[in-house]
Amino acid sequence: MHTVNEYVDYINSQIGAIKYPSRPARLYEPIKYTIEAGGKRLRPMLLLAVADSLGVPMGMAVNQALAIEMFHNFTLLHDDLMDRADMRHGKPTVHVKWDAATAILSGDTMLTMAGMMVTKGLRDKSALDILALFNDTAIDVYEGQQKDMDFESRTDVTIEEYLDMISQKTGALIAAPCLMGAILANADEDRRQAFKEFGKALGKAFQLQDDWLDTYGDPTVFGKKIGGDILNDKKTYLLIKALADSTGEQKTELLSLMGTRSDEKIERVRAIYDATGAEAACRSLIEEATNEAIKAIERAELSDRATEFFRTLAEKSLTRRS
Amino acid sequence: MHTVNEYVDYINSQIGAIKYPSRPARLYEPIKYTIEAGGKRLRPMLLLAVADSLGVPMGMAVNQALAIEMFHNFTLLHDDLMDRADMRHGKPTVHVKWDAATAILSGDTMLTMAGMMVTKGLRDKSALDILALFNDTAIDVYEGQQKDMDFESRTDVTIEEYLDMISQKTGALIAAPCLMGAILANADEDRRQAFKEFGKALGKAFQLQDDWLDTYGDPTVFGKKIGGDILNDKKTYLLIKALADSTGEQKTELLSLMGTRSDEKIERVRAIYDATGAEAACRSLIEEATNEAIKAIERAELSDRATEFFRTLAEKSLTRRS
Repeated sequence: MHTVNEYVDYINSQIGAIKYPSRPARLYEPIKYTIEAGGKRLRPMLLLAVADSLGVPMGMAVNQALAIEMFHNFTLLHDDLMDRADMRHGKPTVHVKWDAATAILSGDTMLTMAGMMVTKGLRDKSALDILALFNDTAIDVYEGQQKDMDFESRTDVTIEEYLDMISQKTGALIAAPCLMGAILANADEDRRQAFKEFGKALGKAFQLQDDWLDTYGDPTVFGKKIGGDILNDKKTYLLIKALADSTGEQKTELLSLMGTRSDEKIERVRAIYDATGAEAACRSLIEEATNEAIKAIERAELSDRATEFFRTLAEKSLTRRS
Repeated sequence: MHTVNEYVDYINSQIGAIKYPSRPARLYEPIKYTIEAGGKRLRPMLLLAVADSLGVPMGMAVNQALAIEMFHNFTLLHDDLMDRADMRHGKPTVHVKWDAATAILSGDTMLTMAGMMVTKGLRDKSALDILALFNDTAIDVYEGQQKDMDFESRTDVTIEEYLDMISQKTGALIAAPCLMGAILANADEDRRQAFKEFGKALGKAFQLQDDWLDTYGDPTVFGKKIGGDILNDKKTYLLIKALADSTGEQKTELLSLMGTRSDEKIERVRAIYDATGAEAACRSLIEEATNEAIKAIERAELSDRATEFFRTLAEKSLTRRS
């Protein structure tokens, strides 16, 4: 096993080495701009680490890792346009720096490029297995994104609906690289399941922590303004839980704050999250998902070093601050 | 061989039989709405006809035909959003009937669905060959669309650049189903090339005829207002050729009309197309491409009936009025 940083450095060097046609420049420049902008590289890192833990060297899994990262960046590009988000990783988004048409078409191209990369270097049967997983995952992500958008106009979203939504929108694209790493290593069905469940639980913890950080993070560490989700009435776990558990005046206040935008709103909604126990419930759910991830990885029966690697990774989702 | 109408009816019945998940409704309804809205079904019809001419029954090629039609409709959906086109096949486009976010996400889903359909029912090697062709074709279409958008802000587009653009934007997606039909039939390399060249030439004739009809068509038959390309200064063959061949006052007039919008503009630009010989040059290029298509199909050494089918099809591109 390598360290997380070693996997990430390798991925970044391989992303920098992707060859794009030089023309039409306006199609390929936004792709390079988007994928080179940064990010944690969590998904391709997981793929390389899983493959590595089962004896497959990084170079044998790199195309699939790049495909997953290309797909992830395609979803960011199109999501930012749908959400009219202006900045990503501290840089203007593609539809701001160029325009909407460029964002649409470059995104489409990234999706097809990801589909080309994902079978690269693979032989018949395993190429088609990996491709089917890639496509099924993409459908999950689209359905999750649509559900997330559908939630915007509702105040009656249930916890169950929310967890189903994040399992598709975020969880599927974290489970997929874990499972892909196991498929590339030709692992048996039990191990594949173990890695898939590890990824799903990790994805759940990851998304819940993201929601939590948006409200409770330290702005100097988190890297963006705190309270954006509250201002936008985003149906996060915290809001849904607080809506479900608040009563009387608390509930009236929460509902009356929705649709408004002020710094005071952030304070008042956060106070309701604290008072209703939504914050505490969010923390225990993150802990629960992290423990699930750790249990799953133990079922994979890896070397001690590999088990430790994935356990540490899961535990970080409990404590990460950015 | 069947008749064109028989292939088209079969495709329409199969399109009607596509199963979509019921939820999220807002993701799948626009897909069904788009692909069931109509159209000539030229591309899937070509795929079925080529396969049939080589002994592959329709049912054995239908998944690939549907994949091509799904992909084509995805490009229409995203192109209409990029071009802000309000109507398609006499119905409001998805971004008008729903919104831009819905158009983006439903289009993305159609692209992935097309990628899933294109290998359906195929075994290892042929699945991967067909997939590679599908992906390469998609890249051609995106590059062609980008070049077309790049032309908007230029008045110095050359005929060569224009023909290169349409060979990617339109030609590739007409050549691909022809080649796919031959691959599905496991045809030898010569026949594959013959069908590919047939499709490329047919695509060229098809696009040039589309350009011509937009200016010289009969509005009652063509189904939309005549002169839209002229009003929008669209860099069609006619405009590029007229810009290249006009001199003196004619050229000054043509350049001064660009950027304006009036019914008079349509008349005056059309008069310049006539006087400079751009219209006549367009007609000969269509004829030339049609003859190329016919020569290519003769190299495929099909039954007389099949050769006749494809020859008639190519000749229709000379005379079609809608």
